[in-house]
Amino acid sequence: MTHPTFSNLRIDSDRLLGRLMSLGQDGALEGGGVCRLALSDKDKLGRDRVVDWMKELGLRVTIDKIGNLMGFLPGREDLSPVVLGSHIDTVATGGLYDGNLGVLAGLEVISVLKDSGYVPLRPIVVAAFTNEEGARFAPDMLGSAVDRGSLDLETALAIKDSDGFVIAEELARIGYAGEAEPGHIDPYCFFELHVEQGPVLEEEGEQIGAVTGVQGISWTEYVIEGISNHAGTTPMRLRHDAGFAAASVAVAARKVAEEIGDGQVVTVGVNELNPNLVNVIARSARLTVDMRNIDEQKLQQAEKRLAEEIAAICKAEGVRYTSRTLARFEPVMFDQNMVDLIADVAMEQGRSVRCMSSGAGHDAQMFAPVCPTAMVFVPSQGGISHNIEEYTSPEDIKAGANVLLQAALTKAEEK
Amino acid sequence: MTHPTFSNLRIDSDRLLGRLMSLGQDGALEGGGVCRLALSDKDKLGRDRVVDWMKELGLRVTIDKIGNLMGFLPGREDLSPVVLGSHIDTVATGGLYDGNLGVLAGLEVISVLKDSGYVPLRPIVVAAFTNEEGARFAPDMLGSAVDRGSLDLETALAIKDSDGFVIAEELARIGYAGEAEPGHIDPYCFFELHVEQGPVLEEEGEQIGAVTGVQGISWTEYVIEGISNHAGTTPMRLRHDAGFAAASVAVAARKVAEEIGDGQVVTVGVNELNPNLVNVIARSARLTVDMRNIDEQKLQQAEKRLAEEIAAICKAEGVRYTSRTLARFEPVMFDQNMVDLIADVAMEQGRSVRCMSSGAGHDAQMFAPVCPTAMVFVPSQGGISHNIEEYTSPEDIKAGANVLLQAALTKAEEK
Repeated sequence: MTHPTFSNLRIDSDRLLGRLMSLGQDGALEGGGVCRLALSDKDKLGRDRVVDWMKELGLRVTIDKIGNLMGFLPGREDLSPVVLGSHIDTVATGGLYDGNLGVLAGLEVISVLKDSGYVPLRPIVVAAFTNEEGARFAPDMLGSAVDRGSLDLETALAIKDSDGFVIAEELARIGYAGEAEPGHIDPYCFFELHVEQGPVLEEEGEQIGAVTGVQGISWTEYVIEGISNHAGTTPMRLRHDAGFAAASVAVAARKVAEEIGDGQVVTVGVNELNPNLVNVIARSARLTVDMRNIDEQKLQQAEKRLAEEIAAICKAEGVRYTSRTLARFEPVMFDQNMVDLIADVAMEQGRSVRCMSSGAGHDAQMFAPVCPTAMVFVPSQGGISHNIEEYTSPEDIKAGANVLLQAALTKAEEK
Repeated sequence: MTHPTFSNLRIDSDRLLGRLMSLGQDGALEGGGVCRLALSDKDKLGRDRVVDWMKELGLRVTIDKIGNLMGFLPGREDLSPVVLGSHIDTVATGGLYDGNLGVLAGLEVISVLKDSGYVPLRPIVVAAFTNEEGARFAPDMLGSAVDRGSLDLETALAIKDSDGFVIAEELARIGYAGEAEPGHIDPYCFFELHVEQGPVLEEEGEQIGAVTGVQGISWTEYVIEGISNHAGTTPMRLRHDAGFAAASVAVAARKVAEEIGDGQVVTVGVNELNPNLVNVIARSARLTVDMRNIDEQKLQQAEKRLAEEIAAICKAEGVRYTSRTLARFEPVMFDQNMVDLIADVAMEQGRSVRCMSSGAGHDAQMFAPVCPTAMVFVPSQGGISHNIEEYTSPEDIKAGANVLLQAALTKAEEK
């Protein structure tokens, strides 16, 4: 029997889009968008649907103890598999694409193989990880973290949501407390196709992002304590205005981003004054600073510069401040050969490519320390994500899934 | 009968302090401070107490249709009276002094006259005006505004508090819907002794403030609309950050105050971001700017400069904004002869004096357009007011009340 060459294989974008729309019905919101919080009844419906598709495709389905779904397609040899993974949980007002695209594009790769009769050298696994969003249970990327051992299973199972519901019980309730040990699959490499969730590809008119890594994240909360006083009777020179200090920090944060340049982003997303009244100088302010960079050294430089700025601002205004680290993750670098492979495949397919870092966290980053890992990004219209208006065009979805298909099959033929 | 000269008369500070403490029991809060919101049950108790004192002193008590209390002491001739007025309503967490001091110092002036047997040429009226604070019913200075005709009686009676209770009904309920027409007393001049509610006298080591006027007030609300986006995936150059624009406005507001200088105060007391999340660029921000100056021209200059700043900031960030005037009052200038009289009397009594403007509104400003008017300020410890920790020392109260006594009697001897 002559084995067909895989380079001519192409995904069926109608089938992929059809599955995206079908999955989007589980938790569909009136007016558009999806609410499929992890381990909710709607998540169960979505999982059931994905498991049905996996079974229809003849995959061997396993569910591990943290609820991660894996569909296993045997290869010509019993080697470690190429894993194509993402998630199907959403935020409370999510869209059709975030996460879902990566899982269903994986199933589309399997479908193409089934249709063509082509069997790759290595097995291929399609994975859907539990609670990537972190919208119901903290931390995010929970299932992939447990799979890769960076989060302990027992700890994870005991985590509660804000209403006190425990992961272990919710898994059992929806029938997804599996038997398999997390990490039972030892991946040869890991791919994740995902929507960009940002505006860069669209703004620059590029079709494919070859993701080089995930930015390091530094979240700090500052609480500034000044002296509350009457807005009319307190001369400017006698003020200790926590609100003015907080505003000055927000302005300084932008300045730090510009100084560091080169991909450094800084956001003051929270700024609250107390008592927050028109005619009262604020007694206290709480603000958060979110800083990200793909370069750990530069991220540290940004942290240091901001710390200098806030110290100087608070000294000048005569206010006190405390700071608290809310989150700190070092940048994750993806495998250069994998990134090159994605870029090469995309260009062979006539797509324009941008190498870029991810500003958001993804399941793929949990795999980067243990196996060659990379991600494919497709444009998000308007850069909008975590929003019912999240949208990626059928053309871009098709382009991204074809890159995933060819890159995955290339790796699946490696001995 | 030899008429005693009034220049040797002095107030009895123990009696005045005793009345302040007694009145502070009506609405006393556990832990200190007073809650005696206008037309509440506690306000009724306070009013009853003041009326009892007025009657004990032999004053003719009238209550007008908006609930203003007046105690009338006849003079040697039937001339227009010297009015000593303030208010006894408080904010929800108020102190013992704000307003109450002016009313009770007026009663103390009457008590001194009664004790000495001295009858001034002109009548003296002690007045307590309804709802000066505006803490329950808007606007503030309501009773004095109705008395002076700048607010229509029918309009005022129909005003509701936030729970829907109507002034007319609340006046009737507590027994203070009087028969007298507002404005039935035509004042020869008006004095108000008040705590400074700011830190200037204390900071500068002065004992008496001779108040030259009340600052003009300009309150503007700005709503800035940007584009919400992911804090990690949105490059700095593609941001339209409402939070950054709001912070920049708050910093610019301080700059405008410094540019105008010379008593200009600017406060951004409200600053709210939406959605106010660590990792989301703010879609919108709402902030308020409170600007005050005793000089109308300079206040207009400050308004103009801030408008220029916010337009430039929002243009640079690519965000839209709307503005809404929440309040606008022109400055009120007190009568220069009255101000000089207060300063002269204070210096004759060995007190240090500062001529100063009031940053807060007072009943006196309603009288300034119709008769010679001025205020006496005494220091507020720490500049604190509208707070249960409001405090003015017995020594300062004594000094201020003696200035009021001598200034009022000087005017009361004018033909």
